[in-house]
Amino acid sequence: MRIEIVTIGDELLLGYTIDTNGAHLARELAAVGISVVRRTTVGDGAEEIAAAVEGALERTGAVITTGGLGPTADDLTKPAIAALFGRGMHEDAEHLAWMEARWQERFHRPLPPSNRQQALVPEGARKIVNRHGSAPGIWLEDERGRWVAMLPGVPRELRGMLADALLPLLRERLAAAGGVPPDALPVVRARTLRTTSIAESALADRLGELARGVDGLPLAFLPGQEGTDLRLVARGLPAAEAERRLAAGAERLRERAGDFVYGEDADDLAALVLAACRSRGLTVAVAESCTGGLLGARLTAVPGSSDVVLGGTIAYANAVKVAALGVAPALLAEAGAVSEGVARALAAGARERHGARVGIGITGVAGPGGGTAEKPVGTVWIAADVDGAVRAMRNVFVGDRAEIRFRATQYALDLVRRALAGMEPVRGFGAADGIAATPPRMAAAPR
Amino acid sequence: MRIEIVTIGDELLLGYTIDTNGAHLARELAAVGISVVRRTTVGDGAEEIAAAVEGALERTGAVITTGGLGPTADDLTKPAIAALFGRGMHEDAEHLAWMEARWQERFHRPLPPSNRQQALVPEGARKIVNRHGSAPGIWLEDERGRWVAMLPGVPRELRGMLADALLPLLRERLAAAGGVPPDALPVVRARTLRTTSIAESALADRLGELARGVDGLPLAFLPGQEGTDLRLVARGLPAAEAERRLAAGAERLRERAGDFVYGEDADDLAALVLAACRSRGLTVAVAESCTGGLLGARLTAVPGSSDVVLGGTIAYANAVKVAALGVAPALLAEAGAVSEGVARALAAGARERHGARVGIGITGVAGPGGGTAEKPVGTVWIAADVDGAVRAMRNVFVGDRAEIRFRATQYALDLVRRALAGMEPVRGFGAADGIAATPPRMAAAPR
Repeated sequence: MRIEIVTIGDELLLGYTIDTNGAHLARELAAVGISVVRRTTVGDGAEEIAAAVEGALERTGAVITTGGLGPTADDLTKPAIAALFGRGMHEDAEHLAWMEARWQERFHRPLPPSNRQQALVPEGARKIVNRHGSAPGIWLEDERGRWVAMLPGVPRELRGMLADALLPLLRERLAAAGGVPPDALPVVRARTLRTTSIAESALADRLGELARGVDGLPLAFLPGQEGTDLRLVARGLPAAEAERRLAAGAERLRERAGDFVYGEDADDLAALVLAACRSRGLTVAVAESCTGGLLGARLTAVPGSSDVVLGGTIAYANAVKVAALGVAPALLAEAGAVSEGVARALAAGARERHGARVGIGITGVAGPGGGTAEKPVGTVWIAADVDGAVRAMRNVFVGDRAEIRFRATQYALDLVRRALAGMEPVRGFGAADGIAATPPRMAAAPR
Repeated sequence: MRIEIVTIGDELLLGYTIDTNGAHLARELAAVGISVVRRTTVGDGAEEIAAAVEGALERTGAVITTGGLGPTADDLTKPAIAALFGRGMHEDAEHLAWMEARWQERFHRPLPPSNRQQALVPEGARKIVNRHGSAPGIWLEDERGRWVAMLPGVPRELRGMLADALLPLLRERLAAAGGVPPDALPVVRARTLRTTSIAESALADRLGELARGVDGLPLAFLPGQEGTDLRLVARGLPAAEAERRLAAGAERLRERAGDFVYGEDADDLAALVLAACRSRGLTVAVAESCTGGLLGARLTAVPGSSDVVLGGTIAYANAVKVAALGVAPALLAEAGAVSEGVARALAAGARERHGARVGIGITGVAGPGGGTAEKPVGTVWIAADVDGAVRAMRNVFVGDRAEIRFRATQYALDLVRRALAGMEPVRGFGAADGIAATPPRMAAAPR
């Protein structure tokens, strides 16, 4: 099934809001074998809405709209599309009664007149249940089987309605149209291996001919702040077959990529490191200079982290490094704050002062100022101390201040992951080898 | 001028990449008075690209495309649109020579064959300078004056080329078409007041009739994690007149919103608080329990923060609160870790132990677990200690773990802002009054 998406809203068109609904819809629809072939964004005007939906219906006969179902005068999706289908609007008594009861119950006041129009639906329409808000979704279909599904623009409502009601309905139609059981429907499935501590180009070299795809499944390299993700995609196969081929392909990729693979799909390295510590009964404390608390924030962003993370010290000023973590003033004076010795002392200090088994130290030049020829912006020393055994490494990360700080936390977490698993440490990197090093075509041009 | 945008790329269409270019283009074009009336996203196929651009040209005669200018076989934007204009492709000798020289100089190797196609341009096209990458932008225009500007999809390149080359070119055309000097061209300008520590509904009440607009300028309420932004927009006026009306409107809004306004446009509260401390010669240290380093990370994300931020303690475990910050064990036992007394002790401990003039303490229940009837998830005590004078407040924030933690840092920063400026503290809030409290139409529905 090929469909088009029409997203509606002046805020989207004017660029004040980034459209995340379109991407979510595309991913979820692709997973059940429905291809989004075009996405169109228009403003709130009834004519614009009707023109965009009309074009999409002519091309595919299948359209999902988002937005314009709210209670205000600029919410024109329903009447605009009803007119396109030659339908009038009527008040849905059931929905109105539900809204009136809900307002009394929740807000102890009568339904505001502006919300009343949310109970208006096109004639012959089917409502799509909305468990997360007051606007129902609308399914409108003509005698030729061409249809428009109207969903609200609020992401939480849209996501809920898609999963609860629209996807099951579309799968039924697909199965009925194909005369097959739902299990035999072709789907699109993806599987992602997450790598870190290796540059995209070095990873491609390790993968060799697999870098172009595995057993006919295309492979995408997705470099980002957390490392380079490898996404393998299977299209047009039944779900079971797609999963089998993806599992086999992922296995082949893992053999080549080795221990640079730290997880799959939405895995978060901080959560994985916490789990590794938890399973070994280890507690963690951090000592952060240039990252200023970002590593602690990442670790404690994980629900339930309190049984592993004791806390730490944000040792931004040298005086705090000395007083709170016991870094020797002479070391700071001789080697400088951004040095292997200080990183090791930070890690050890975090472990000892906070009574943890694992200490992590980070010190570096996040920029934009503060760089020197010897220690350019992006230079970061990190150290991991596990029960007194310390590993340290130097990196020169590319990117702006935020990217350098984030990458430092990612490499620090990976240093701990490797230490706990008894893996070899990776060698320190120069700028050209940092995570997501700028590939040639993105490098700055001199003209 | 009305234009359309066509964004090109399977990754965008499939939802693996969120399109931020479209929003950036719309905002920048609006600022010079150019309206984006539709945005279309299609995949990498030549036919799809041509169909989308053809439709856009028919409607407006003015199209900007993004993406599909790279060096690989699936980069088909140029040939697809050249064919639509009935033009062939030729190799641009000047650009090829520049690329060859660049590869030698930067990468010390010959230009890869795949990059050679980046020097292919449609006949009769004008190149748009790209200072940030190897693909030139392309301007193609037919004899009727209908045009397509092709920009790369890499955001950094696109943004640079838009500012350097395309916007000046479009303004010239607008001025020539209107027979007016560029200064007299109508523009769209916006001005945003940033508020925090007040709920959207309470803010609307304070604004009274201004909530619907000021002197004919429409006003938008934009609730988010940092608070509620008030955006005033002026359309269709010359730049000087638009700025004058916005300034007057912002002044009227400020009178009503009072000290809940902490900044304008892209102002960051952390940066403003740092600046306020710097101007008073104050240093800062933090003591974070439930936020686990997030406040420190926000403060040190600001370049140049090291002259104000000394550091702090991530006091996640109670043992760290006691040992590193001197919180009394009896207080923890009696009042609990999430209590006014502990927040005050954290702030004082941060200030004293780290030798700062300002200490900030945060302790709360970020969830999803750990809530009780008395201290539900979202309960956060924050305290600010300035030279020994302590203010503390309790909040119950709505949202998930990440939202609760972020809002806690925002309220903590605002507590310091208010203390430094000698403003009254805001009263503590219940759930219904938290930042960006869920408005009625977004509340969960029981069916």
